[in-house]
Amino acid sequence: MPQQPVISIRIEFGDHLRIGPGKIRLLELIAQTGSISAAARQMDMSYRRAWLLIDELKSILNSPAVETNAGGAGGGGAKLTGVALALIAHYRALETATQSQGESLLKLIGNAE
Amino acid sequence: MPQQPVISIRIEFGDHLRIGPGKIRLLELIAQTGSISAAARQMDMSYRRAWLLIDELKSILNSPAVETNAGGAGGGGAKLTGVALALIAHYRALETATQSQGESLLKLIGNAE
Repeated sequence: MPQQPVISIRIEFGDHLRIGPGKIRLLELIAQTGSISAAARQMDMSYRRAWLLIDELKSILNSPAVETNAGGAGGGGAKLTGVALALIAHYRALETATQSQGESLLKLIGNAE
Repeated sequence: MPQQPVISIRIEFGDHLRIGPGKIRLLELIAQTGSISAAARQMDMSYRRAWLLIDELKSILNSPAVETNAGGAGGGGAKLTGVALALIAHYRALETATQSQGESLLKLIGNAE
């Protein structure tokens, strides 16, 4: 018997552009750590791959998701823009609503409860 | 500017077991065509790959999703079981609800309307 199922959502724009759990998690980790490389490491992802995802988000949003600054002792930091913070909040809220509305689907599959 | 976004849902069971748009589409095409090979062909998928997905669904549902019969002129046919029909109905209803509740998310991304 598989473990307790989880419903996840993806927003698909065609041409292989999408926002799903991976990009959202990456943004959350950047917010937590203040660092793209630390966030990438926690996801077992290369820095280059993280940058590609951030760049893809920028083209989807028509606006940057992450701001970086170069300077200071200890190297530069990274933080999320307002639109990225709003994206996370909306995405997680929708995910939670979908999960709770999916109860009948999960019961059908026989794994709920 | 990407095209009009679409929200899709996936039910994840861990261990790489999931039910998402691909398996649901495959089931719908089997229902329409009465044939696994015709459904696979419409999805540009090998017959073997279609069978693997159907087998994965069986292990998730603890019950077959597709019934086949061997005989008759013109070869055997395939049809969906009750649980597979119910799965499609619940899945599409949840997807529609999520899409309409995702309006604020889609507006944020700037592609809605």
